[in-house]
Amino acid sequence: MVDSQGRFLRACRRQPVDATPVWFMRQAGRYLPAYRAVRARHTLLEVCKNPELSAEVTITAAEQLGVDAAIIFADLLLPVEPMGLKLRFSDGDGPVVEPVLREAKEVAELRSDIGGELGFVGEAIRWVNKHFGGRVPVIGFAGAPFTLASYMVEGGSSRHFLQTKSLMYNAPETWAQLMEKLCAVLETYLEGQVEAGAAAVQLFDSWAGCLAEGDYRRYVLPYSRRLIQAVQSADVPVIHFATGTAGLLAAMHDAGAAVLGVDWRIELGHAWAAVGFEPAIQGNLDPVALFAPSAELRQRVAAVLKQAGGRPGHIFNLGHGILPDTPVDNVRAVVEWVHELSAAPRAKSAADE
Amino acid sequence: MVDSQGRFLRACRRQPVDATPVWFMRQAGRYLPAYRAVRARHTLLEVCKNPELSAEVTITAAEQLGVDAAIIFADLLLPVEPMGLKLRFSDGDGPVVEPVLREAKEVAELRSDIGGELGFVGEAIRWVNKHFGGRVPVIGFAGAPFTLASYMVEGGSSRHFLQTKSLMYNAPETWAQLMEKLCAVLETYLEGQVEAGAAAVQLFDSWAGCLAEGDYRRYVLPYSRRLIQAVQSADVPVIHFATGTAGLLAAMHDAGAAVLGVDWRIELGHAWAAVGFEPAIQGNLDPVALFAPSAELRQRVAAVLKQAGGRPGHIFNLGHGILPDTPVDNVRAVVEWVHELSAAPRAKSAADE
Repeated sequence: MVDSQGRFLRACRRQPVDATPVWFMRQAGRYLPAYRAVRARHTLLEVCKNPELSAEVTITAAEQLGVDAAIIFADLLLPVEPMGLKLRFSDGDGPVVEPVLREAKEVAELRSDIGGELGFVGEAIRWVNKHFGGRVPVIGFAGAPFTLASYMVEGGSSRHFLQTKSLMYNAPETWAQLMEKLCAVLETYLEGQVEAGAAAVQLFDSWAGCLAEGDYRRYVLPYSRRLIQAVQSADVPVIHFATGTAGLLAAMHDAGAAVLGVDWRIELGHAWAAVGFEPAIQGNLDPVALFAPSAELRQRVAAVLKQAGGRPGHIFNLGHGILPDTPVDNVRAVVEWVHELSAAPRAKSAADE
Repeated sequence: MVDSQGRFLRACRRQPVDATPVWFMRQAGRYLPAYRAVRARHTLLEVCKNPELSAEVTITAAEQLGVDAAIIFADLLLPVEPMGLKLRFSDGDGPVVEPVLREAKEVAELRSDIGGELGFVGEAIRWVNKHFGGRVPVIGFAGAPFTLASYMVEGGSSRHFLQTKSLMYNAPETWAQLMEKLCAVLETYLEGQVEAGAAAVQLFDSWAGCLAEGDYRRYVLPYSRRLIQAVQSADVPVIHFATGTAGLLAAMHDAGAAVLGVDWRIELGHAWAAVGFEPAIQGNLDPVALFAPSAELRQRVAAVLKQAGGRPGHIFNLGHGILPDTPVDNVRAVVEWVHELSAAPRAKSAADE
């Protein structure tokens, strides 16, 4: 019998598990009273930059939910600061990165030789690992080069990615330089997380789904692939996640991550088939399903597991982060149901063999 | 030789054409100086409700671009007013629908027996047809029930469609009643447009791509299908459009439209293959490609045509509406390139036969 402790990492490697592992993007977030209590006293960036605090919110969430992995609490945009840009969070409107990058000169001036400036994230990973003592693996993470570039070029969130794509199309060399610099920074950043004990790393290319496949292959894939290879050369699996990628999966698979993260806008079985069942796959409950009545939610959990077909290499997650007003009890229930519903048929099939 | 006049309608019916027809979503929009001049004197709703003005902006755009079809100028949200809600457009933030619908009682109070309240749209179609005298076909349009419902439930645009999906999941009967009422209103509305001379109708389910396939099939498809059948029973082809539908195409095809409109986030050939090459297909240049340098833009137009494979039944369009700052010359150039690049190989293959 495979123990529950190795579930998450075994699934990343497509090895048999006793039950499907489950964790949630943004599992340490506003929907949790304990998180809100910390945030009542500290800004988001204060929590991120204080290893004790970020370890605390990471640990509390994982303990309260009973999930199979703890993603370290941090913000996607932390790397823009040591590169020379300003980062702040406006109320309600999300992140603001200043000044926006539009010209070759501005990209040329970005720093890419960061050293220990983001070391607080590694430090937080050490705290969490010390607490769990191997009982719950810690997932490190970073924004992928494209998604970080889009924030730097747009100055924040974007609907049409007009400036980002315009830079690609009109100044491909400047674009390439920006992506090269981001790769260098992210490689250092992720190496630090791996050295600190991250058991796996999730690369969030959250907005890559805005791209046509041709643009993805030309302007994004080479950089994501390089970064994924660098992390995986240390035998640490990468979860390569983006949203709205039903048309991009083959291209994303070419970036070589051990695990592909998909959202609910593609049937999980179809997603897996599209990449030849080679990588492990993570997903893909709609975060809004957590607002459904209990019976309906349970059916939806069962449906995701059914679509995964009981194959080794499924990691249960949402298709995007937990939303702020999500009922905590529903999140906890999903963890229990995933374990319960996925353990049963496997135990039976093991008995059959 | 097939003449250029029937290009658009012939393509809707997958009949051979002399060149691929092309038009653009939001072709009468802010990027055009002539449109801005009209809007400097009139609000959006004033233009929509004045048949002479909406005909004028429709005609001017089609004439200036040399496109193969003229979509009538109107707003997706016009039907919410006769149903009993208020509609306004806030600066920059897009449409606001008030009050938001959340309770069964609020849905029960909506009117669905509208008569001539939206007759100004049909009137505008008559004006445009009178001007063109059959030279350029007029496309009528409406928002699909799901997309209109989402605006009514969210009160405007939405990122997560939390309230809309919550209503589906928690009050499926209220949801069904809302969709029934929208169907009734939209059927009357579209019948009026067809009687006025719309040669085809585009049903914009712009935000349906936010749904998992199972939710689409359960909560949306039956209503879209009914509406499409009603319009097509009058022998008027429906273009069924949504964005981000790479995972939804088979389900959308089940709604039965003669033409499926797709965005750039699925390779056109893959999209067509996914629906067995049965319907005609419309798309799918990224609107941001119109900001690319001329040589790059031309290559992208050629790539879309190549992906369509020269099959009968391709209508060239963007994957979403033209953006406000789009260079007009680039839009005009795309029309010329589509005609030029699609005419050549077909003329040759006709000569070969």
